Amino acid sequence: MERWSWPPSYDESYVPPARQEHWFPVRETMDPEAREEAILVRLREVMAYAYANAPFYRRKWSAAGLEPGDVRTLEDFERVPVVTKAELRIAQAEHPPFGDYLCIAPEEVARVHGTSGTTGRPTAFGIGRDDWARIANAHARVMWGMGIRPGDIVFIGSVFSLYMGSWATLLGAERLGAAAFPFGAGVPGQTQRAVNWMLQMKPAAFYGTPSYALRIAEVAQEIDVDPADLGVRILFCSGEPGASIPSIRARLEELYGAKVIDSGSMAEMTPWMNLGETSAQAGMLCWQDIVYTEVCDPDTLRRVPYGSEGTPVYTHLERTSQPMIRLLSGDLTRWEAGPSPCGRTYPILPRGVYGRIDDQFTIRGENIYPSAIAEIVSGLPEYGGEHRIIVSRDDAMDTLAVQVEYSASVAGDEAAITRFRDVARDALRTTLGVNTEVVTFPPNTFDRSEVKSHRVIDRRDLFREVVDTP
Amino acid sequence: MERWSWPPSYDESYVPPARQEHWFPVRETMDPEAREEAILVRLREVMAYAYANAPFYRRKWSAAGLEPGDVRTLEDFERVPVVTKAELRIAQAEHPPFGDYLCIAPEEVARVHGTSGTTGRPTAFGIGRDDWARIANAHARVMWGMGIRPGDIVFIGSVFSLYMGSWATLLGAERLGAAAFPFGAGVPGQTQRAVNWMLQMKPAAFYGTPSYALRIAEVAQEIDVDPADLGVRILFCSGEPGASIPSIRARLEELYGAKVIDSGSMAEMTPWMNLGETSAQAGMLCWQDIVYTEVCDPDTLRRVPYGSEGTPVYTHLERTSQPMIRLLSGDLTRWEAGPSPCGRTYPILPRGVYGRIDDQFTIRGENIYPSAIAEIVSGLPEYGGEHRIIVSRDDAMDTLAVQVEYSASVAGDEAAITRFRDVARDALRTTLGVNTEVVTFPPNTFDRSEVKSHRVIDRRDLFREVVDTP
Repeated sequence: MERWSWPPSYDESYVPPARQEHWFPVRETMDPEAREEAILVRLREVMAYAYANAPFYRRKWSAAGLEPGDVRTLEDFERVPVVTKAELRIAQAEHPPFGDYLCIAPEEVARVHGTSGTTGRPTAFGIGRDDWARIANAHARVMWGMGIRPGDIVFIGSVFSLYMGSWATLLGAERLGAAAFPFGAGVPGQTQRAVNWMLQMKPAAFYGTPSYALRIAEVAQEIDVDPADLGVRILFCSGEPGASIPSIRARLEELYGAKVIDSGSMAEMTPWMNLGETSAQAGMLCWQDIVYTEVCDPDTLRRVPYGSEGTPVYTHLERTSQPMIRLLSGDLTRWEAGPSPCGRTYPILPRGVYGRIDDQFTIRGENIYPSAIAEIVSGLPEYGGEHRIIVSRDDAMDTLAVQVEYSASVAGDEAAITRFRDVARDALRTTLGVNTEVVTFPPNTFDRSEVKSHRVIDRRDLFREVVDTP
Repeated sequence: MERWSWPPSYDESYVPPARQEHWFPVRETMDPEAREEAILVRLREVMAYAYANAPFYRRKWSAAGLEPGDVRTLEDFERVPVVTKAELRIAQAEHPPFGDYLCIAPEEVARVHGTSGTTGRPTAFGIGRDDWARIANAHARVMWGMGIRPGDIVFIGSVFSLYMGSWATLLGAERLGAAAFPFGAGVPGQTQRAVNWMLQMKPAAFYGTPSYALRIAEVAQEIDVDPADLGVRILFCSGEPGASIPSIRARLEELYGAKVIDSGSMAEMTPWMNLGETSAQAGMLCWQDIVYTEVCDPDTLRRVPYGSEGTPVYTHLERTSQPMIRLLSGDLTRWEAGPSPCGRTYPILPRGVYGRIDDQFTIRGENIYPSAIAEIVSGLPEYGGEHRIIVSRDDAMDTLAVQVEYSASVAGDEAAITRFRDVARDALRTTLGVNTEVVTFPPNTFDRSEVKSHRVIDRRDLFREVVDTP
């Protein structure tokens, strides 16, 4: 297989001829069984490495009566206990700042990013220099499969901060030899300037969330610019399930006259393009030689057969800094055996990642837990005891609103109610990382008999292929 | 001289021993006359390269009756006509998107950035792959001089979009072997999260504008965090003159318990750390072997003697993609001969860059021309004929407000006046790239007899060393 060993190291000058379909033809089109044999070798190497370098894994596996040498088949590997995000948070609280699953010396960390901390303490990513180069190589490879080529201008319309989406796309664009235009997002007034710049630069490719791509199209139309004139040939997305939803994909393709491509697993799994669609548009592929994906039964956490639904469990095969070994995503998908029409023999997620096994939802790339919202509003002294979370789509942008009761103690005092609303709004925005509208209601407005999960009303209807329902 | 030739190429694995003061001891401490001899050789090479590859320079120099071979001394070089930003805009409008001063093939452009376009058409930067690596090397060298070392966490608290400040700092941090934490700025709600993350990660170095550093300290104090507990040892700034103003520097040093370092020339001149202070804190040095700086008489555009005031004129010595040859800054400074106490023999700007030869002002890293504001407000049908621009400091953040008269036609119609205010505010924000408060006044509020330049009221008193005057 093309230059694949542990730890992986790539020829940084390699770029295939522009007309070649596959970045690594052997690795991408090989017999799946032969690939699985190679993956098993990698898994044993990664586990031995993590066992030697991370007290976190030693502790975890010892408690399960397991050693890396015990894994002799992919079925054996299914018995390795999964890692949850909560465990990572605890490991970082106890071993700050990177947790005792950091397998390199802290001074070898080249980049720091993190989660937005919507569920409590944010998790820090400490990424080593070698991993940074590996992420670049992996993403260049997947982006090549999307049809992006050297010299293409790649406009990145997503925020550059903690969010790994933007950074790892930038890395891929640079490594591939494209002209990266990291414009960003999230700053007030920036969308119209994005339209003007795209009009001026005609980027061949655009990256962002599907809802932000819709928003840009909308703003373009408001100033009499046809989004199809922005020059975008490939519109690739992550951060929301939208790009795999036929109605949203169709709308984006019509607006931009571009091919819409879906990608993305989890920030912790960066190179997150391990789930990445190709120009054949057959659904996201599981690039198994970058990250080993098992779609599992949520109860047994063992693989389900192709054709079945389950939750992805991911294992890094190319990371040495904070390798994730069987990280439980909690997402929901259905997988099929390959090959895809593009010739790649990876498993396929024909409908993308379309749900959750818990009540988390995703909005503009941020993972939101209703429990975090409950914690914030119920901690305010003027909280009236009940609230509702409304996720909807204002024309093109996903929006988040919280309807919250104020307490009887402030009823009638308009100034106090307004203050309560403003404090709640600022606290939600700071913690969640997304703008949140807060609407106040008198005490006892909402039915107490409903179960907690009914607090969330998602009007986006993402999974029912309806976009325009109010 | 250490690996210095044209076009320059550096050993990407080179990093000095941590205790060494100078990244390139020979280049940084050599006899200034010997350096000038080497610079003259470079200038001739750069001019020959630009003449061969850029119609822009051929046209410009031919009109002046000049060929690269005519430059035999640094005094000869003073006769090369300066380049203005307006010329760059025209060249890009006529030869989109990068202008006919792009000296590489468009497909060799690796990164696209640009100006915010506050004075009309934004200018695009098309930066080649080799230049990107040279910028990284130059910035790593200057940041080394500031005292930053491999393994230090460098927190970058400035927006990642068009703005070159953030990106080229990130490049330097990466090349130097620091752990880069590119947190960004500008997104609503982000400042409090910045405080929390700094508290969690304890970054040894912080980069941002001086006013944003003050703002972060203020937000920290609001949530009972002492800014001195954020772990910052080196606070380096650009984008505003603040870090060279003794009162602001003293305030920042006291708040953070950190050394404050100033840097920065112009985005077009990236590596803009060509003006960069060192840990000796003797004022910004002109790193002449990276960018050749001439402090010039604003009328003759020839160098003034050391000890005198003038406007910097810059020439790239290490850029092949869009080399600037005698770019007129329009800034105001005073220069002195070196050496600095750190042993570097470069000229020194003891008071930094402290003014302009025109009416432009800088706010949060954005260059604002009053003429651009006038163009926007006077283009609205409800404009009453006069306005004032108020630049002030709201505790720590520089703020921009425009007081504008509405026309007699809407007088008394509160709804129309509010609409006018909102339209003006949105238009200003979109064009200028900074939030602008708009306050409306009845027609004929403002004195018409004042000259135009009095429209700007800068209450920051940046140049009078007073911070707290309202």
